[in-house]
Amino acid sequence: MPVGTRGSVKGILPELVRATGAQIVLNNTYHLMLRPGSELIQKMGGVHRFMNWPGPILTDSGGYQAYSLSDMNKVDDDGVTFKSIIDGSNVRLTPERAMQVQNELGPDIMMAFDDCPPSAAEAEDGDKRLVRALARDRVQTEDAGRQAGSARDTELAKKKNTLTHAQRLELANHRTIRWLERCKAAHARPDVQALFGIIQGGTDLAQRSWCVERVCNIELPGYAIGGVAVGESPDAIATVVRHTAPLMPDAKPRYLMGVGYERDLLIAVRAGVDMFDCVLPTRNGRNANAFTRTGQIRLRNAQYQLDQLPIEPGCDCLACDPARHGHATPDGQPFTRGYLRHLFMAGEMLGPILVSLHNLRHFQRFMADVRQTIQSDDWAGLLARYPVAA
Amino acid sequence: MPVGTRGSVKGILPELVRATGAQIVLNNTYHLMLRPGSELIQKMGGVHRFMNWPGPILTDSGGYQAYSLSDMNKVDDDGVTFKSIIDGSNVRLTPERAMQVQNELGPDIMMAFDDCPPSAAEAEDGDKRLVRALARDRVQTEDAGRQAGSARDTELAKKKNTLTHAQRLELANHRTIRWLERCKAAHARPDVQALFGIIQGGTDLAQRSWCVERVCNIELPGYAIGGVAVGESPDAIATVVRHTAPLMPDAKPRYLMGVGYERDLLIAVRAGVDMFDCVLPTRNGRNANAFTRTGQIRLRNAQYQLDQLPIEPGCDCLACDPARHGHATPDGQPFTRGYLRHLFMAGEMLGPILVSLHNLRHFQRFMADVRQTIQSDDWAGLLARYPVAA
Repeated sequence: MPVGTRGSVKGILPELVRATGAQIVLNNTYHLMLRPGSELIQKMGGVHRFMNWPGPILTDSGGYQAYSLSDMNKVDDDGVTFKSIIDGSNVRLTPERAMQVQNELGPDIMMAFDDCPPSAAEAEDGDKRLVRALARDRVQTEDAGRQAGSARDTELAKKKNTLTHAQRLELANHRTIRWLERCKAAHARPDVQALFGIIQGGTDLAQRSWCVERVCNIELPGYAIGGVAVGESPDAIATVVRHTAPLMPDAKPRYLMGVGYERDLLIAVRAGVDMFDCVLPTRNGRNANAFTRTGQIRLRNAQYQLDQLPIEPGCDCLACDPARHGHATPDGQPFTRGYLRHLFMAGEMLGPILVSLHNLRHFQRFMADVRQTIQSDDWAGLLARYPVAA
Repeated sequence: MPVGTRGSVKGILPELVRATGAQIVLNNTYHLMLRPGSELIQKMGGVHRFMNWPGPILTDSGGYQAYSLSDMNKVDDDGVTFKSIIDGSNVRLTPERAMQVQNELGPDIMMAFDDCPPSAAEAEDGDKRLVRALARDRVQTEDAGRQAGSARDTELAKKKNTLTHAQRLELANHRTIRWLERCKAAHARPDVQALFGIIQGGTDLAQRSWCVERVCNIELPGYAIGGVAVGESPDAIATVVRHTAPLMPDAKPRYLMGVGYERDLLIAVRAGVDMFDCVLPTRNGRNANAFTRTGQIRLRNAQYQLDQLPIEPGCDCLACDPARHGHATPDGQPFTRGYLRHLFMAGEMLGPILVSLHNLRHFQRFMADVRQTIQSDDWAGLLARYPVAA
């Protein structure tokens, strides 16, 4: 799934997203609820009409961004409170509110509101961030004469800091199950919007086992593995996915959130995962990094200055083979690496657009090949075509 | 002609530029000669192949930007020296160099290197800029121990300042004629690249008469009116164009450079002008200003927040009627004003893209209607369809 965070796959017309082979796109609840707001999108006919995307849409629950994008967030047993990145106001997300917002947005698949604990490394960074944020908040709070609130924050922080990483994972798992039950109960339109549950547990396989059993005991149209695209090593991702995916029901879609590179995707598919989302194709595309079968190339490099080849010879994307897409160009030639380099050096929007289109197509084509390989079982053949996935 | 300053109509794929009805695009020699350089573009097969545009291309001479984009430029009888906006290095443009650069770029139409004098208002501003620039330059020069150069600059500035506006126009006209003869002599590929001469003279009609006679006495495939899109009032543009265009040869294309709004275009067509270029459709599109038959609308305005209409009902552009362009959308609906407002408020690239597409189509459709009206002679009918042009 290409990611259209704010209701737009950055710089790409919906029809051109479709032309890359994408069947479904992801929107981020966190961003859309803050701006323009889920009520507005509901009044505009729902997120499909809003962004003019004719296919299915999946939204996340907003929880992950509420944890990760806000310096100052407070998770409690009932939900999370965070400061809006738009206007600094306090925003509250609970399982019930996450369902209400996604019911208003109207995607085909909505994600449960879970407690996504930080990875061990992140937890350490997070402690430092928390100390800074508390110091800042204390100054502001004292200015306003609200010492009581500040004292409460400090208590909370102390409590947070007294939990070991293992305890934090366990707490998150318990919350995730309780919150999932509340999500299912609060979901207003289960007939037309599929709610997926999310399995947490960090890199602790016992916690994953505990969580997958309880999440999948709750009858839902699909299940997801969360909390593996938060800074873990590829090996850690592989270990968690290989352990968890086979424990999920066979007959329901299995979705690995926020993954990833070709190698990670391949490992996950072979472990039984069906669905993925990732910002890599568009984010890296905007930074002039193009994916190819043999690895990424950096189009800003001086070596491409006079290069008349397409990003990847043989690629059927709009940038590499515009004639195939009905675009008239001199002699049907591609957009060359030399031209793309110029666009990036000059800060021209068309550079990010063309490389995003190429990267989206790269991943769609790779996944189409993976689907065929599931039939043929010729994984060596796939790796020969995509050395990058080895 | 849509403007593709740096070899790209900002944010718009060439095929989508074509789909707006554009037959030819303009590139700016000044920008392309500084980055990536005309030699590089020549090695890449010329500007058509470089930017992947299958139709004709026109380039300006670089002179106008050398005057207007550089705080510190020195015009003399042989050409202009300016500081590069890319790296601050000194760049020299002469008639011969302007031809060499455009021969290397390889457009179908190339413009003569002329002396475009500032308008009266600009001249006053320019004097202030010059004083500031000289002060800055003096400090730098003294740091480097090159007092001699600084003294020369000051002399030059004094000389510039002693010219009245009328004298400056006259000087520019004499240079423009001498330089045009040098351009024609230096042009290496007159068989495949059409060189257009440019008529200057500011808002002084006697100077325009003097210039148009001498420029059009030099046998060339086309002629242009320059120096009217440099800050003059619409009335001043109209007066100059109505005076000058009828004095240009009937059988050759007449090109009014850098114009403009619908009203200006209409006045110029009725005075006999055939060709135009302007950044308005794309520049205003990037700023959320959409052109309509009744005037511009600002899509950032709160009034459009819940607006489900297209930018302009009845418009056949890709933003207003994507289904007509083969784009699948829910119920073939348009990109709504409410969605476009959201894209601009969120800083999403797709906003500038969609409104630029609409604006380009608006001007192409308007000009197509103007061409039909030349046949029908029903100018009242045109104004009824386009009140904005009245």
